[in-house]
Amino acid sequence: MIPLKDAIPYTPPFRCRILYTGTLPLAGEDSSAQQDSEQSHFQYATPSPSVGIGMDASITPLRHGGLSLVQTTDFFYPLVDDPYMMGKITCANVLSDLYAMGVTECDNMLMLLCCSNKMTDKERDVIIPIIMRGFKDTAEEAGSQVTGGQTVINPWMTIGGVASTVCQQNEFILPDNSVIGDVLVLTKPLGTQVAVNAYQWLDQPERWNRVKLVVSEDDVRKAYQRAMFSMARLNRTAARLMHKYNAHGATDVTGFGLLGHANNLARVQKEEVGFVIHNLPVIAKMAAISKACGNLFGLLQGTSAETSGGLLIALPREQAAAFCKDIEKQEGYQSWIIGIVEKGNRTARIIDKPRVIEVPAKDRDGELW
Amino acid sequence: MIPLKDAIPYTPPFRCRILYTGTLPLAGEDSSAQQDSEQSHFQYATPSPSVGIGMDASITPLRHGGLSLVQTTDFFYPLVDDPYMMGKITCANVLSDLYAMGVTECDNMLMLLCCSNKMTDKERDVIIPIIMRGFKDTAEEAGSQVTGGQTVINPWMTIGGVASTVCQQNEFILPDNSVIGDVLVLTKPLGTQVAVNAYQWLDQPERWNRVKLVVSEDDVRKAYQRAMFSMARLNRTAARLMHKYNAHGATDVTGFGLLGHANNLARVQKEEVGFVIHNLPVIAKMAAISKACGNLFGLLQGTSAETSGGLLIALPREQAAAFCKDIEKQEGYQSWIIGIVEKGNRTARIIDKPRVIEVPAKDRDGELW
Repeated sequence: MIPLKDAIPYTPPFRCRILYTGTLPLAGEDSSAQQDSEQSHFQYATPSPSVGIGMDASITPLRHGGLSLVQTTDFFYPLVDDPYMMGKITCANVLSDLYAMGVTECDNMLMLLCCSNKMTDKERDVIIPIIMRGFKDTAEEAGSQVTGGQTVINPWMTIGGVASTVCQQNEFILPDNSVIGDVLVLTKPLGTQVAVNAYQWLDQPERWNRVKLVVSEDDVRKAYQRAMFSMARLNRTAARLMHKYNAHGATDVTGFGLLGHANNLARVQKEEVGFVIHNLPVIAKMAAISKACGNLFGLLQGTSAETSGGLLIALPREQAAAFCKDIEKQEGYQSWIIGIVEKGNRTARIIDKPRVIEVPAKDRDGELW
Repeated sequence: MIPLKDAIPYTPPFRCRILYTGTLPLAGEDSSAQQDSEQSHFQYATPSPSVGIGMDASITPLRHGGLSLVQTTDFFYPLVDDPYMMGKITCANVLSDLYAMGVTECDNMLMLLCCSNKMTDKERDVIIPIIMRGFKDTAEEAGSQVTGGQTVINPWMTIGGVASTVCQQNEFILPDNSVIGDVLVLTKPLGTQVAVNAYQWLDQPERWNRVKLVVSEDDVRKAYQRAMFSMARLNRTAARLMHKYNAHGATDVTGFGLLGHANNLARVQKEEVGFVIHNLPVIAKMAAISKACGNLFGLLQGTSAETSGGLLIALPREQAAAFCKDIEKQEGYQSWIIGIVEKGNRTARIIDKPRVIEVPAKDRDGELW
């Protein structure tokens, strides 16, 4: 595999989506859309006549019999050194916003690419087609297709996409219907950012020295593999099961970490509820690294960024265990009940000493999970 | 107005869309998609079960009664120093790909933004909302809406969007039905790249010296204004009139210049036809600048890049004059019959000494056109 890391930056300095709240901010009136990324992230507040606010994808009612266009776009910077996996991760990450709305069928995808001008022609000609193939393969795995896109040259390699679907009302699930007594389920472990960074530190002695007492090189390589495959995994089965088990709303966990997204989801709820998170499923050993690094990641505080993370789903208490069992049966991957919905003021919090669940609980030679 | 030009690059070094021909190229097999931008531009060859090839927008048949999702994305770099106009131009440019397909209604738009990390916080907080407002205003002028998007930080300011519509078969016009005897109509004058560059040269004495014998500063400022307003103008009326006057196909003239796009349109024709271009409508004085600069632009050779250029439309000969008259009546802007469709091998050419039409023919004090 060709390492991307020499040609591209790993860590985006900033990442947020645009806040559209009916009217765009005018100069001098309100520029918070650009400043307050925590606030603005995934707030697709759509102007009339669109549906809902605070959603991962925009929903536009169409002129044609009860149909809606559900759409999302996302782009970011490479974070793994395998271009094929990077393409898959990008695609899974874009689709995840649809899945968070309970949409299971994506009609069409476009791919967005900026090739880095720091790549040689050879690097570009080898790497870019592999990224595109990864993206395309995952789109097909999702039952979708890639029909177009745009490519430009730019200092930073940038990858992303657009996912669109046209569907009936009953094909998507609005995120704002959680009630007291619901529980919160998370469908992928946390810690992708920690794993990706720790893997880079293997080549940076001054950084590596900070964590080598708590983890081995093998631990880090394995965590990196786990993170990579987890990020490339579709949340599609979870979206399907949201319908089967009557989910009351969901979001996907990405750039603002578990707590950021939990707060965003809590804020849009119709009922006066609050989310309390007790359990943190984390890729094995990543909690130890995060602790050893002080406040660098905030993994146990729920602020460590994730890429293509799991769905955070509010489910009726009596359905949640069945949901977790069903997804594990279908996919072979665990989900976790991580918290509860109680009376509150539409915020989320993590309890003082959350239980950290190492994923997997037991390491087996030659097996990732 | 806040000049963008200190914070951003003006001239993109490269620009192409992705070539998707059924399957994406694999490493080592075919990387022409990235290399041959002239070939790949606007080739939205869509895999089964999509419709058509060589189109400006992708057409995806939907699961729902005869409907199709028509979609396009485009992004590029700022080229005028007025952020509001830049937003408008970006939006008009994205929509133009739908209009080239005869689509007149855009259901939804997303905006794509990379803020330059070379901007100060103040520059960013002032400029970005103005760009967004320009984009949004033009989207509304087009009867559409902006419901979301993505923003990242990047060395180069980058702006673009996604335009989507869901429509019946009769709402779009496939581009491949021109026949011998058709004529070619162009709905905006050429020369936007020359005008934008010449305007920048006003501050660069060594460049300005090359052209000051053929144009005045006032000529250049006026041409820049003309280019700016032309780029911000929607091709929507032209798209509507394509239906009324039975257009046989169209494309929009952008990054590869008139000849590049004419060739792309010629290549996808079902009949064995060729396009011959006799007339070049050009923003006043820009032909003189292009000549004074030797081969720098290739304006009269049809290779000068345009941004948000006009539609190039193949129309039945007996309808073309009426089309031009109608659009001028509705919008106050001229269109031109610039060439003919004759027997040929699906290529386009410009005759040896094309007639240059200065637009406007006569300069009036205080008026742009």
